[in-house]
Amino acid sequence: MSKEKILQLLRSSRTGFVSGADLASRLGISRTMVWKHIKTLEHEGFGIEAVPSQGYRITLTPDLLRQADIKQGLKTRTIGKDIRLFAEVVSTNTLAMEAASQGAAEGTVIIAETQTGGKGRLGRQWISPQGNLYLSVILRPNIPTHKAPLITLVGAVAVASAIRKHCSVPAAIKWPNDILISGKKVAGLLTEMSAEPDRIRHIALGIGIDVNMELQELPQDVRMHTTTLANEAGAKIDRKALVQQLLQDLEHWYRIFLTSEAEVLKEWEQLNMTIGCRVTVSGMGEIFEGLAQGIDQEGRLKVALDDNTIRIVAAGDVTILKR
Amino acid sequence: MSKEKILQLLRSSRTGFVSGADLASRLGISRTMVWKHIKTLEHEGFGIEAVPSQGYRITLTPDLLRQADIKQGLKTRTIGKDIRLFAEVVSTNTLAMEAASQGAAEGTVIIAETQTGGKGRLGRQWISPQGNLYLSVILRPNIPTHKAPLITLVGAVAVASAIRKHCSVPAAIKWPNDILISGKKVAGLLTEMSAEPDRIRHIALGIGIDVNMELQELPQDVRMHTTTLANEAGAKIDRKALVQQLLQDLEHWYRIFLTSEAEVLKEWEQLNMTIGCRVTVSGMGEIFEGLAQGIDQEGRLKVALDDNTIRIVAAGDVTILKR
Repeated sequence: MSKEKILQLLRSSRTGFVSGADLASRLGISRTMVWKHIKTLEHEGFGIEAVPSQGYRITLTPDLLRQADIKQGLKTRTIGKDIRLFAEVVSTNTLAMEAASQGAAEGTVIIAETQTGGKGRLGRQWISPQGNLYLSVILRPNIPTHKAPLITLVGAVAVASAIRKHCSVPAAIKWPNDILISGKKVAGLLTEMSAEPDRIRHIALGIGIDVNMELQELPQDVRMHTTTLANEAGAKIDRKALVQQLLQDLEHWYRIFLTSEAEVLKEWEQLNMTIGCRVTVSGMGEIFEGLAQGIDQEGRLKVALDDNTIRIVAAGDVTILKR
Repeated sequence: MSKEKILQLLRSSRTGFVSGADLASRLGISRTMVWKHIKTLEHEGFGIEAVPSQGYRITLTPDLLRQADIKQGLKTRTIGKDIRLFAEVVSTNTLAMEAASQGAAEGTVIIAETQTGGKGRLGRQWISPQGNLYLSVILRPNIPTHKAPLITLVGAVAVASAIRKHCSVPAAIKWPNDILISGKKVAGLLTEMSAEPDRIRHIALGIGIDVNMELQELPQDVRMHTTTLANEAGAKIDRKALVQQLLQDLEHWYRIFLTSEAEVLKEWEQLNMTIGCRVTVSGMGEIFEGLAQGIDQEGRLKVALDDNTIRIVAAGDVTILKR
């Protein structure tokens, strides 16, 4: 696409400038067409300066994700092959589930700049202002339905790994679907599926990461327990590069999962902050307290009560007790 | 509704006849309106004779299910409160899943006279000619996702019970989702769900029963392993009464399930024909043979191999070996 090619040429120019004539001849298009593409880029939020006798120069790159930017240099085979980018959606997961039931391929990624009805686990809300990452990946693993919780674990490993690599902050997994830094929530996962009891049809793995938003965007009670990557890293985060890292880590761990679930569980244990802690667990009409001992082969949490009985937790909310 | 009331009056008349004047006065409508309703009933397949000085009389009742007929005398509180009846659909289960995601209440029943894309388990086809029963029930049980297989068991118990009561034939359950009579398939179940790993959003419990169809409607290879209730009972079956019995038994066993899963498992064992048989199990890339020993608390089949190891089967096809 000529527009993308123009951006590329402008970005790779040593002086910063490329003349309109140069652009036209290198793309094999007219100078009028070059000018039209420049106008489109400006419309997309780029600042482009035109200096007589020197040419065009980028003065401002918009902080919006762009499909072509994400794709350029993305080292994945399946995940992100089809990327669908939206300015605003109700919920990337809802969109992904719809796309999947209409036949969208495994690895299709739905990304949105904001969500008006972002969803958390158990029907909760996921507040979704500008500046963060909201994406959902369609997966079609050939696994029995009772193994679906493992997909959340795969996603959590990928998110924690990508954040650690990209931002050098100590992100850790809280069972089952949160990512925390220093005890504050920075990301969450939502796995939804269409299934029969003995096979999964498709999954939407939803990932929300608080990246660059202002914490004031959040209500007071949520803000207390929330942080952003920018906050933790002390600098604004390059979201495009983070998405690329995330999709790469997700493909990596998903592939490993399909051949060796144990390897994912081992990595999950390395990255988690739940095991070894005293926790209270609530859900399914009861609350109890104990020591989080580990996870079983199906990703369920094993909690040792004070009378030494072991409870296997498939669903529930975990609160980690301060020591 | 006046039209239903007219049917009721005609059916309950001792002579068979009710005059138009009588109908009009008892319904508080004009004779022209009575005549219009009679025309509508004829359009729906009823034969109605008009004899001067005697009145109207039903000469033919169409063999089509009618919502009002099913509702009349139906002794359920939830299941069948909302009945949606269709002449032809692609799949009652697909329709039920759509209705559920748009908020249809628990217990909503979708019934169709035929399906053009009837579905069996694992993406298979369910051939759906006229004369049988095809229905799906929306359920919203507050249970964790890994317990979904139990819903198929609840459905199987209800179908086998209803068939036994209504047709006096020895219907038995073959794990996980078939109902057989004398080794031939007469009904099947398909459980579909929308879920997170730790909670079910909604389920469509699909039930197909081969009732009155001609077996010639089926391809030769399917026909060999199939029978119909009419075939087994030696007489045409009243489908309306069977639906009523089925919905009642389904409500009965679903309610029991919500308070005592063990009681359902016990009844399932009474009605099943798999346990105690030598079986081959295929699925998830392997085939093995053993003795079906029982089902576990989550509805999975326990198979004892010849080396006395026990395999727990969550997904797979079971073939019962002849003794």
